[in-house]
Amino acid sequence: MSSYVISEQYGAIGYLTLDRPKQRNPLSVAMMTEFAAALRALAQQPDVSVIVVRAQGPVFSAGHDLREMVDRTLDEEREVFRVCTDMMEAVQAIRQPVIASVQGPAVAAGCQLVATCDLAIASSNAVFGTPGVKIGLFCSTPMVAVSRAIGRKRALQLLLTGVPIDAATAADWGLINEVVAPEALAARTTEVAESIAAASSSTLAIGKQAFYRQIDLPQAAAYVEMSEVMATNAVTCDAQEGMSAFVQKREPVWQGR
Amino acid sequence: MSSYVISEQYGAIGYLTLDRPKQRNPLSVAMMTEFAAALRALAQQPDVSVIVVRAQGPVFSAGHDLREMVDRTLDEEREVFRVCTDMMEAVQAIRQPVIASVQGPAVAAGCQLVATCDLAIASSNAVFGTPGVKIGLFCSTPMVAVSRAIGRKRALQLLLTGVPIDAATAADWGLINEVVAPEALAARTTEVAESIAAASSSTLAIGKQAFYRQIDLPQAAAYVEMSEVMATNAVTCDAQEGMSAFVQKREPVWQGR
Amino acid sequence: MSSYVISEQYGAIGYLTLDRPKQRNPLSVAMMTEFAAALRALAQQPDVSVIVVRAQGPVFSAGHDLREMVDRTLDEEREVFRVCTDMMEAVQAIRQPVIASVQGPAVAAGCQLVATCDLAIASSNAVFGTPGVKIGLFCSTPMVAVSRAIGRKRALQLLLTGVPIDAATAADWGLINEVVAPEALAARTTEVAESIAAASSSTLAIGKQAFYRQIDLPQAAAYVEMSEVMATNAVTCDAQEGMSAFVQKREPVWQGR
Repeated sequence: MSSYVISEQYGAIGYLTLDRPKQRNPLSVAMMTEFAAALRALAQQPDVSVIVVRAQGPVFSAGHDLREMVDRTLDEEREVFRVCTDMMEAVQAIRQPVIASVQGPAVAAGCQLVATCDLAIASSNAVFGTPGVKIGLFCSTPMVAVSRAIGRKRALQLLLTGVPIDAATAADWGLINEVVAPEALAARTTEVAESIAAASSSTLAIGKQAFYRQIDLPQAAAYVEMSEVMATNAVTCDAQEGMSAFVQKREPVWQGR
Repeated sequence: MSSYVISEQYGAIGYLTLDRPKQRNPLSVAMMTEFAAALRALAQQPDVSVIVVRAQGPVFSAGHDLREMVDRTLDEEREVFRVCTDMMEAVQAIRQPVIASVQGPAVAAGCQLVATCDLAIASSNAVFGTPGVKIGLFCSTPMVAVSRAIGRKRALQLLLTGVPIDAATAADWGLINEVVAPEALAARTTEVAESIAAASSSTLAIGKQAFYRQIDLPQAAAYVEMSEVMATNAVTCDAQEGMSAFVQKREPVWQGR
Repeated sequence: MSSYVISEQYGAIGYLTLDRPKQRNPLSVAMMTEFAAALRALAQQPDVSVIVVRAQGPVFSAGHDLREMVDRTLDEEREVFRVCTDMMEAVQAIRQPVIASVQGPAVAAGCQLVATCDLAIASSNAVFGTPGVKIGLFCSTPMVAVSRAIGRKRALQLLLTGVPIDAATAADWGLINEVVAPEALAARTTEVAESIAAASSSTLAIGKQAFYRQIDLPQAAAYVEMSEVMATNAVTCDAQEGMSAFVQKREPVWQGR
């Protein structure tokens, strides 16, 4: 049924693959709608602990599909960005950590998707940019995610010049977590995903949701909320099991709650 | 008429030059008042797309003029910081991107000015610091801009120790975008300015204003605002022209609206 | 009386030392309660200008004492995090700058303490991490301090993987300010503390309190508050003395007000 996104599950890892390589994986309305639906469906699987977002072909994603933004009404344009924001928010709203595995250029909304994922691992031949300024359409929604990941001066550099950065620079700036050789990307992504999936899925869900709840709050308000999150986390089955196992120097057995 | 600031225009680039080199370009009330007025006047020129802020002499700016802060009333001191904040806010409020081109030390309010500009390029012999703590006057207004550019621990290091950092460290921390050899500063600044000025001036204005509108908002609120900004940007003449030109693989012709 | 924390004063520098080395300096309720009380007592000393937080033994702090979190009621867990948050807030609320001097691993709430101090200097054999995810108890309160110090992607990496980073990486990410050889840690910490203590203690108090008051505000609101802080700072005895001494090229004599 899905012609834009491939959804797969191997063990505790879900893989969502952008699959329009010849078109450079454009984030068309159809692609974004399918992506958000497939992501939420994967997230509903109780045995999926971590989700990897990746892409087919030489390009991760070239961003929005410009052909569906020419000669449109304002309401049609609004629909593009409504669907796009819904997709980005879904990445952070689901309970599983999401890792972007970036094999090639990720630009405009493609760069936004990388910035939005919880973690990102990239091949050394990936590049990252927000070139909208060069075609008269400033990357204003990508900048929400990008400026929150890399700070003001560097975000403005990407946004105002439109010149992309290489993967090493992206790692240096904190846009991505790690750069690996192209041939090592798949294995390293799976290795990181599996190491995270070894944790209690309920603990991961508590932590991920808490992260985004606190990140935009003033510090004192964040402490009020996080103290309550951590206290209620501490009395869960898995925390009690994990702490007991640690004190007793044995492996924990998770129940997922 | 202006004895503190030189205002020039070459093509689409406006240049504003601090011109009290013997006094180390102090941000006196007179200097700041003139700077803000000259900046706003340049920004009113419809054919100015990018503005460069630079300085004469070996020092970019040594910060406020201490001689006009000794033996003053509280209301006189308040006036200094009112004028200073007005000048800094003007840099971010105008529609053109502003690039600091830093040829020497930028300290206290001089460092604040660099942190406030959208982009900054520095000579390798520039240094950056907030040494007010050493003279009993903590750099509390500079820290607004500096802490938002480089984060907590590094801002506190500059503020509490008063020890300056070199240009390479400033680039590593994201206070500036790029370091070049002293003899290359002018040419590289112009090169970056011209590359940005090749974009549609209306797109640059939309993007710059949107950047500062979203940067302090919680992410969800930022997406609501930026989705509307990007949708309305998309139906402008220049965005329609830019996208069409890109799809048709030709150069765009901007109308500035 | 104090069996968990050693409080000392040498000249203008106060030293607070975690002193449960065999237990890896756990932040038990008793330790945190004593730490907060000892810190506030040191901060009350009018001649203490800077406070150093350090630890005995090979580990800086392993975080909370898990044995007092197993088989507890929700209200007992809440008490742990209430006491912990109170301790962290005390570090930032007191008028003196606080420098963490980190000689070994600082994990979970121990990492939070480092992130919370105004400055941090670490030995090259220190490591930093938030491994709670591995024992079912996500480091949700540590993440308040850690995510505000190092940004989103890197904070999520520490939190979701639980894998620690070395001191060089912590410096590169801005979690700490400086890395030194293990044998140089004590001397370098004292050197930095004394250089800061050479400033006016009232100026340091004004600046530190102002820093935390502005850091979470939108920029325009921060400028309103900081303009008033800086104007009132400027008319204090020490600022007038410091500016006069600077203009007259002589050493200032502080009165601490």
